[in-house]
Amino acid sequence: MPFTPRTPRVVAARRLQRRREREATGRFLAEGPQAVREALARPRTVVELFGTPDALDRYADLAARAAGTDVPVTEVTDEALAALAETVAPQGLVAVCRHLDVPLATALARAPRLVAVLAGIRDPGNAGTVLRTADAAGAAAVVFAGDAVDPYNGKCVRSSAGSLFHVDVVRERDPAAVVAAARSAGLAVLAATGYGEEDLDELADAGRLAAPTAWLFGSEAHGLSEELVEAADARVRVPLHGRAESLNLAAAAAVCLYASARAQR
Amino acid sequence: MPFTPRTPRVVAARRLQRRREREATGRFLAEGPQAVREALARPRTVVELFGTPDALDRYADLAARAAGTDVPVTEVTDEALAALAETVAPQGLVAVCRHLDVPLATALARAPRLVAVLAGIRDPGNAGTVLRTADAAGAAAVVFAGDAVDPYNGKCVRSSAGSLFHVDVVRERDPAAVVAAARSAGLAVLAATGYGEEDLDELADAGRLAAPTAWLFGSEAHGLSEELVEAADARVRVPLHGRAESLNLAAAAAVCLYASARAQR
Repeated sequence: MPFTPRTPRVVAARRLQRRREREATGRFLAEGPQAVREALARPRTVVELFGTPDALDRYADLAARAAGTDVPVTEVTDEALAALAETVAPQGLVAVCRHLDVPLATALARAPRLVAVLAGIRDPGNAGTVLRTADAAGAAAVVFAGDAVDPYNGKCVRSSAGSLFHVDVVRERDPAAVVAAARSAGLAVLAATGYGEEDLDELADAGRLAAPTAWLFGSEAHGLSEELVEAADARVRVPLHGRAESLNLAAAAAVCLYASARAQR
Repeated sequence: MPFTPRTPRVVAARRLQRRREREATGRFLAEGPQAVREALARPRTVVELFGTPDALDRYADLAARAAGTDVPVTEVTDEALAALAETVAPQGLVAVCRHLDVPLATALARAPRLVAVLAGIRDPGNAGTVLRTADAAGAAAVVFAGDAVDPYNGKCVRSSAGSLFHVDVVRERDPAAVVAAARSAGLAVLAATGYGEEDLDELADAGRLAAPTAWLFGSEAHGLSEELVEAADARVRVPLHGRAESLNLAAAAAVCLYASARAQR
C-alpha cells in the first residue's frame, strides 16, 4: 500500500519544508524529475525517494538508479505527494537529500576560476536563479554569505533548476571572511554595484577579467554593505546604455559572470 | 474629502486591473513614485494621479509636476489607494496612464540599433524584467509579439521598473511580420535559443554583433516557435560552460542584449 499523508515517514519528510527542521536534520527536499535526476547523480546525496506509482513507472530509470544505489524508493499516494511537494505540479517525485554544502576552505582548495558570492540575498528565487546562472557561466562554487537565504529553501532549490547539485555550495556567516579567504586563494574580488567606479566593459577591455575571480552580489533591496564594497579589490558597475536606473539582480549577475566566463576562455 | 473605494472615479480606475478594461479604454495603472515619475516625464501619458494625502505631501514634486501639466491630482483614502494598488506597499501613489505603444513601423523608422522581441512570453514578471534589461542595454524598442502578455499588466509594469516609459513599446500579433519588418529595416534578426547552432561568443569574436540587431526571445516554457527560429538570420545559443542545462529567460536575454551593446559601442 502506498504511504499516505499520515504515514510517519511522510510526516517527517514534510517537516523539511521548514528551515528549522532542515537545520536540525541536515536534510532537505528536492522535487520533480529534473532535480531528482541531478541529486541521484551525486554520490551519497539522496536519502529516500518518494513517488506516486504513476511517476515511478514513468521515471522508471530514476527509480532503478535509486534502488541500484541502495536508496529506498517509497510509493506514496497522490495526496501524500501533494503534501510533500511545494508546487502544484511536482510530477510525482520528491527526494529527501542530505545537505551538500562544503566548507569555504574546501571549495577554495579546488582552485576555482570563478566564484559567485551571494551576500545577504534573502529572496530564494533570486538566489536560486543566480546559482543557476553561475553554474552556466562555469562557476565552480557559490557562496551563501552573511544573512543569505537557506540554499535548501524549496524555492531556491527549484529556481536553481538542478544547479544546486552541480557546484560547490558554501555557507559562511561572515561575508568579510569570504573576501579574505578568496583573496588569499588568489582570486580577484569584484563587488558588483551600480555605484561602482569601474565599468565592466572597461575591465574586460583591460584584460582584468581573465584572472580567477570571485564576484560579490548583494540583495536587490539593500545592495552590498559598505564594508564589503570597500573590502573588494574593485567596485564594478554594469554599464547602463539606456535610461534604466539599474538592472535587477539576476540580470546584473548574468552579465558580470558571463563577462568573466568570456574573458577566461 | 479624499475619495473612497466607492467613489465612481476610483471604482472606474480600479477596473483597469483587468485586461479587458485596459483594452476597452486604452488606459492602465502605474503605481509607486518611481513609475509615476517616469510616466509624468512623458508628454500626454498620465491622465490622473491618485495619492493619499501623506504621499502627495511626501512626493510634492510629483504632485506639482502633474498639476503643472494639467493632470488632475486626486486625494484618496488609504483604503482607496489600497484598492487601486496591486502591491502591499504602493507608497501612496497610483497614476492612470494612456497606452503608449507605437506601431512597429514607427519604431523601426527611428532606426533603432537594438530591439528586443518578446515572442509569446506570457509571464508578466519575465516580460517586465526583459524590458528593463533591454532598456539598460540600450534597446530603443521592445516588441510584445504574438501571444505575449499585455505590456500594461500591473506586474509587467512593476517589473519593468519604469522602463516601460523609456523605450518604444510595440504590440504586434504576428511574430513573423516582426521578423520581416525588422529585416526590411536593415536589422539582423537573431533568435536566442538553447539549441542554436551558433555560439554567442563566436558571433561576438567574428564581429557579427556590431550590426543593428533585433533579438527574438521565446517563453521559458515553450521557447521560440520553429517557424520563428527558422525565419531568423541566425540561431544563437548562450554558451553553457558548467553543467546547467539552460539559463532562465531573464539571464539569457541579459547576456545576449549586453553582448550586442558591447559590440555596438
